[in-house]
Amino acid sequence: MATTSDTTSGAERFSGVLAPVITPFREDLSPDQDKFNRHCQWLLGQGVNLAVFGTNSEANSLGLQEKRGLLDGLLKAGVSPAQLMPGTGNCSLIDAVELTRHAVAAGCRGVLMLPPFYYKGVSDDGLFRFYAEVIERVGDAGLAGVKLYLYNFPLMSQVPLSVALIDRLVQAYPDAVAGVKDSSGDWDNIQAMLNRNWPDFRVFCGSESLLLQTLRSGGAGCISATANVNPAAIARLHKTWADDDADADSQQAQLDVIRQIFQSLPIIPALKAATADYSGDEHWARLRPPLVALNSEQRQALRQALGKAGFQMPALT
Amino acid sequence: MATTSDTTSGAERFSGVLAPVITPFREDLSPDQDKFNRHCQWLLGQGVNLAVFGTNSEANSLGLQEKRGLLDGLLKAGVSPAQLMPGTGNCSLIDAVELTRHAVAAGCRGVLMLPPFYYKGVSDDGLFRFYAEVIERVGDAGLAGVKLYLYNFPLMSQVPLSVALIDRLVQAYPDAVAGVKDSSGDWDNIQAMLNRNWPDFRVFCGSESLLLQTLRSGGAGCISATANVNPAAIARLHKTWADDDADADSQQAQLDVIRQIFQSLPIIPALKAATADYSGDEHWARLRPPLVALNSEQRQALRQALGKAGFQMPALT
Repeated sequence: MATTSDTTSGAERFSGVLAPVITPFREDLSPDQDKFNRHCQWLLGQGVNLAVFGTNSEANSLGLQEKRGLLDGLLKAGVSPAQLMPGTGNCSLIDAVELTRHAVAAGCRGVLMLPPFYYKGVSDDGLFRFYAEVIERVGDAGLAGVKLYLYNFPLMSQVPLSVALIDRLVQAYPDAVAGVKDSSGDWDNIQAMLNRNWPDFRVFCGSESLLLQTLRSGGAGCISATANVNPAAIARLHKTWADDDADADSQQAQLDVIRQIFQSLPIIPALKAATADYSGDEHWARLRPPLVALNSEQRQALRQALGKAGFQMPALT
Repeated sequence: MATTSDTTSGAERFSGVLAPVITPFREDLSPDQDKFNRHCQWLLGQGVNLAVFGTNSEANSLGLQEKRGLLDGLLKAGVSPAQLMPGTGNCSLIDAVELTRHAVAAGCRGVLMLPPFYYKGVSDDGLFRFYAEVIERVGDAGLAGVKLYLYNFPLMSQVPLSVALIDRLVQAYPDAVAGVKDSSGDWDNIQAMLNRNWPDFRVFCGSESLLLQTLRSGGAGCISATANVNPAAIARLHKTWADDDADADSQQAQLDVIRQIFQSLPIIPALKAATADYSGDEHWARLRPPLVALNSEQRQALRQALGKAGFQMPALT
C-alpha cells in the first residue's frame, strides 16, 4: 500500500491527506464560488488534496445543481481534477449517478460516496445493489471507470457499511471500489479493513487523531475536517511519519491538541468561525440551515483555546 | 377541530385519511407514471386523499426532477390538487424550496415536510430557520401561501421535531403551519400537541393503529402506510367513529389485525408485494435500492396471514 506523498497522476489511487472543504455562503445562503475557489487553492498550496462536498462541506444541504456548478467553477479556475475527490452520494440513486457521472466525465481522480441514508436498518443486499447500480450506470455512459471511495460514517448517516459489504463490493468491482473513508471512530473497524488486504485498496481514517496509527498499520492517510484549518501540519505527518518514530509521535500529539479544540465545539461551525477569524472575512462564519453558527461565547472560547495552543493559520488571501 | 369527512375545498385544511402512495418502478427502476396514476385514482375511489412522496413512496430514493414529473403527470391525468399533500422535504434547502414552490404553484392543498435529516443533533434554532426559509422563499415567489404539514418521524429521520419547535413555528407562521404528521409512535407526543390547541392545527397520527384514539382526542386523522392496501376500511372508521362507540372500537380492532400483519414484515416491501398479488402485476413488487423486495418466504407468510384474516383488496384495475 502506497504511503508516499500524494501523486497527481490520475492513474494512481489517492493517498495522503484530503480536506473535506468547507463551503462559503453569501448572505442569501447561495454558495460563493470565488471564495470557495480561493480556499481550495490555499488548501492545495498547503499540501492537501480536496474532498469537496463532504459532511463538513454541508454538501447534503446543497442541491445537485449547486454541486455541479461548484465543481465546474473549481475546474474552470484551474484546479486539477487529479486533486479532487468530490462527494457524490445521495439518497436518490438517480442523483448519485448524475453527480458521479459528471465528476468522472470531468476527470476527477475519485469520488467519495455515502450510502443512501434516509432508510435505516437496510440490508447489505440493498446497499450492495445501490453501489452496484451507480458503478454500472456510470460505466454504461462510456466514461473511464469511476474510482469509488466508500464513506462509512455510521454516527451521522446511521447506515453503517460493514466489512462484509465492502468485501462483496471489492470482489465484484475490484477496479471501481478503490478505498474507504472510515469515520466510525472505531479503530477495530479500520484494523479489520486493513487486515483484509484488498489489492491496492486505500483506507483513510476520518480524523487525523488516528492518522499515525492508520499509516503505521498500512493505511493510506486521512480525510479530516480539521484539514480545513491545520492542513500543513497534518500533511507533514503524512510525509514524514516513517523517518523518525519519536518525531512522528510528537507531531501526532501536537495535531491532537488542535483537533481536540475543534471537536469540543460543533465542529463545522467551529471550522468556519476560525476561517472567518484568520481570513478577516466574516462571511465564512455563515452556515446553511439546519446548521447554525457558533454563538459568541463558543466563538470566544475557540479563540482563547487556539491562542493558548499557539495556533496560527497561514494567511488566507 | 374538524372531524368530518374530507373536503375537497382548497381553502380548508386537510382532515381524514391520506395514503402515502407507494411508487411503482419499471425494470430499469424508473417510476411508472401510468401505474402510479391508476393506483392514485383507485385510492381516491376508496375514499382517501393522497400524500404522494412520503416514506412509503420511497420518495427519498427519487430525484427532484422525478418528483416534479410524477406530480405533473398526476395532475395531467385529472387528479385534483385539492386532494394532494405531496412530500417536499429535502436535506437541501434549495431543493425543498423548489419542490414546495412547484406544488404550491400547481394548487396542492398542502405539503408534508420532513426536516433536513443528514445532520443529527441539530438545534431547534437550525430547524426553525430551515422551515422559516422555506415558508418565506415560497411566499416571496408571489404564490398563494403554502400550507405546511410538519412530518415528525424520529425513528427514521433521527431528527425529532419537538413540541417547542412546532410552537415557535405556529406562532411565527400561523397561516402556513397547518398541521403535523406524527410517526413517533408515542401517544404522549400526539397528546402533547393536541393539548396545545393551536388554532385550526391538524394533527395526523402516522398509523391507523392510533386513529380512533387520535380522533377521540380531537385529532384530524391519519396518514398511514397501510392506507395503500386497506384504504376503505380506514376511511370508514374516520367517517363513522362518532356514531357508535362500540362499533368504532370494533372497527379499530379489525384495522389493527391487518396493520399488525404488514408491520410484522418490512412494511414498504410488504405493501408492494400485496399490491402485486391483488393486481396480478408483478412489477409492483419492485423496490428501488437501498430497499429490497420481500423474499419468497416472507411473501408466502404475508399471503397466508392475509388469507387467514380474510383480507381482500378490491380489484385494482
